[in-house]
Amino acid sequence: MAETINEKDQAKTIEELLVRTLINHELELFREEYFNLHPYDQARFYLRLSVELRERIYECLSPQEMADIFENLDADDEDYEPILSEMVPQYAADMLANMYTDDAVDVLNELNKEQVASYLTIMDDASAQEIKDLLHYEEYTAGSIMTTEFVSIPEHSTVRSAMAILRSKAPSAETIYYTFVINNEKQLSGVVSLRDLITAEEDMLIKDIMSDRVVSVSVGEDQEEVARTMKDYDFLALPVVDFQNHLLGIITVDDIMDVLDEEASDDYSKLAGVSDMDSRDRTPFRAAKKRLPWLIALLFLGMLTANLIGRFEATLDQVAILAVFIPLIAGMAGNTGTQALAVAIRSIATGDIQDESKWKLIFREAGTGLITGTTCGILVIGIVYVWQGSIFLGLLVGISIFASLIVATLAGSLVPLIMHKFNIDPAVASGPFITTINDIFSILIYFGIATAFMGYLV
Amino acid sequence: MAETINEKDQAKTIEELLVRTLINHELELFREEYFNLHPYDQARFYLRLSVELRERIYECLSPQEMADIFENLDADDEDYEPILSEMVPQYAADMLANMYTDDAVDVLNELNKEQVASYLTIMDDASAQEIKDLLHYEEYTAGSIMTTEFVSIPEHSTVRSAMAILRSKAPSAETIYYTFVINNEKQLSGVVSLRDLITAEEDMLIKDIMSDRVVSVSVGEDQEEVARTMKDYDFLALPVVDFQNHLLGIITVDDIMDVLDEEASDDYSKLAGVSDMDSRDRTPFRAAKKRLPWLIALLFLGMLTANLIGRFEATLDQVAILAVFIPLIAGMAGNTGTQALAVAIRSIATGDIQDESKWKLIFREAGTGLITGTTCGILVIGIVYVWQGSIFLGLLVGISIFASLIVATLAGSLVPLIMHKFNIDPAVASGPFITTINDIFSILIYFGIATAFMGYLV
Repeated sequence: MAETINEKDQAKTIEELLVRTLINHELELFREEYFNLHPYDQARFYLRLSVELRERIYECLSPQEMADIFENLDADDEDYEPILSEMVPQYAADMLANMYTDDAVDVLNELNKEQVASYLTIMDDASAQEIKDLLHYEEYTAGSIMTTEFVSIPEHSTVRSAMAILRSKAPSAETIYYTFVINNEKQLSGVVSLRDLITAEEDMLIKDIMSDRVVSVSVGEDQEEVARTMKDYDFLALPVVDFQNHLLGIITVDDIMDVLDEEASDDYSKLAGVSDMDSRDRTPFRAAKKRLPWLIALLFLGMLTANLIGRFEATLDQVAILAVFIPLIAGMAGNTGTQALAVAIRSIATGDIQDESKWKLIFREAGTGLITGTTCGILVIGIVYVWQGSIFLGLLVGISIFASLIVATLAGSLVPLIMHKFNIDPAVASGPFITTINDIFSILIYFGIATAFMGYLV
Repeated sequence: MAETINEKDQAKTIEELLVRTLINHELELFREEYFNLHPYDQARFYLRLSVELRERIYECLSPQEMADIFENLDADDEDYEPILSEMVPQYAADMLANMYTDDAVDVLNELNKEQVASYLTIMDDASAQEIKDLLHYEEYTAGSIMTTEFVSIPEHSTVRSAMAILRSKAPSAETIYYTFVINNEKQLSGVVSLRDLITAEEDMLIKDIMSDRVVSVSVGEDQEEVARTMKDYDFLALPVVDFQNHLLGIITVDDIMDVLDEEASDDYSKLAGVSDMDSRDRTPFRAAKKRLPWLIALLFLGMLTANLIGRFEATLDQVAILAVFIPLIAGMAGNTGTQALAVAIRSIATGDIQDESKWKLIFREAGTGLITGTTCGILVIGIVYVWQGSIFLGLLVGISIFASLIVATLAGSLVPLIMHKFNIDPAVASGPFITTINDIFSILIYFGIATAFMGYLV
């Protein structure tokens, strides 16, 4: 941010001033200064306050004004439930009614059913109905992130009347920069941008200036897919339709940026084996709660590996030096598997996978495993021979690495592909799981070979 | 996408028709059908063609028309150099001149210096100068992704004259939905949206309807930081200024979506230990080339671990059963380290780290390590005791897990924090490196304790 030191100091002073006015109950002065902030900064300031000071804000801001602030809180980072319970229920309901429907739904999705029902009961009927219509869409679908506050115009309007509609709807619509055009059956038939409208003659018909190459998404579409479409086509708004092409709502680019971010975080945390990460985990207990299920699952998988090695105890007893290379072989297999896994998951997430066949990906990964396996295998044979002076030990470790890398690369790419095939989110096949599975494979290979060629080692 | 089977078939038919017209040299018919596609689909179709058919496209499309297609290619996925070399140099230069400057710069950044110089020489002077102005900004800064095709209006204009300017600039400006306002010194003083303009009285002064709470970024700002700002504030365009607050360019939301995606991919691939992933890696050789450097580095680190265990060969010789638990302990340490690493890197990337002190994060992670370590340690003592019937072996493995998890959690969070402190991109501390480092720690702990309490084990 282009803030000079002075501006930063100034920002701090404004915050201090705001806090002071709240403490002194100078609510008129507070309002004046507070509305000078950007809505996002208003939201951040609001969140940092104590419950006591927040309650003073509710005294001096109307539910409408509070709605603007709430729209700027981040759905993934905040716990709405305690905040809503600070407010008088009628105030909270009025605020929710004044929010953009999609944002209100985001908030309500975090509450339990009774809470949602009680807010909807005391809300005005029109808003409650709009919210109910959106609430029944499954989370993470286009329907759940779309807004119903959009402007649509009939094909046979003139530019003049379209502009009049836009002017009147400008204060409440989420975007007026893209307007979707509907035919007599209320089906989506085109799109016209405000750019087109302001440069067109006022008497022209919308039908003649609109673009009928309009890309839409269906209401049940996965939000990640919607985000891809929006990003690829550089749209600012996408229309959402039902299976008969009726226009149900629109999705705006600001919501899509949040989706892109959310999905990226999601894939990332799964690769690392943390169920999800958010900034609310301010205590070690909350953080540990999210990591322990993975760790315990991995612990049992690890015990399986231990059990497996235990079966080769006779081999180990005779040639203790074998133990020295266990972490190397298991580690290399784990790392290669994670690489292949990440590539496969990204290919699936970005939709690249549709451009080429799955078999092609698998053959390519097999080839990659062959190349990396051969290179690392030969290197290892050399190093172990020089270090331990035994060509047989070198060959054993080298060949094990060679075979493990090929198997691990294939496992890393096959597992997510198979999951994708069965419509399971492939990101669930997290890094640690692939790593542990590859540990097992590589140890089987290593001790299998060692036991078979025992005679050369002792 | 809301495509019915019929629409998909139709899309295929259109593509086949387009290819047929190209082969038959029916270029007029081709143009007609081709321009019915969305620019993004035009770009995808174009990319799938053979060089021979692409050359026919250059015959029938003007450099201006080709520029629109080129703007829709994805800078990260495509190799521009071979494509440009298919074109007659003057055609390529004219096309670059007709692209939005920021997109042209993206293309030129992929070429070597001589190629850039030769295109700039044969380009018209005005365009060449605009491109040169942007080319000298460092990659991944606000300057490198901003566009200079924006509309700015003086504070003292009326709404009427501002609208007239916008109408005339609409065809060439990248966005007209946000217009930035400058004062007499050409410094950024406010912003006015098209929404505000169309709802305002025509005789009002811009000064009176503009918002002076305008958030800007400085030209040297990191693009990831810019993306965060844009996402948090839900802007469609951000102004870029120099240190004296002069307006240099704007960054539009479509470029930011690409940045968000790029940065997420980047962090993700580093966590997995692949230097970068892109869909151009269509051959095993290219894929292997990107993964081998990591694997070989990890191989040497792994040899270090092996060497370390080798020093405990005497211990191993006496108690072979110790080897059985090596992968379990090393694996658990590696997994915990990756979890802590991912959380720390995400906190840094999303800027959450600025909201709380680094010490707080470290204390929290230490606490988390203590909780996960205690839980897993106790579990392990129980399992090993039941399985192996030796309480001492159980205690040895359990205590090693306990200590390893604490150390690994701390290592996973400290390493990225230290790197961040020294302005090194913390994502470089990839998962595999943290894993291997934690292997070493955990094995030292395990064999250290084992060797010290040897008497109880044999």
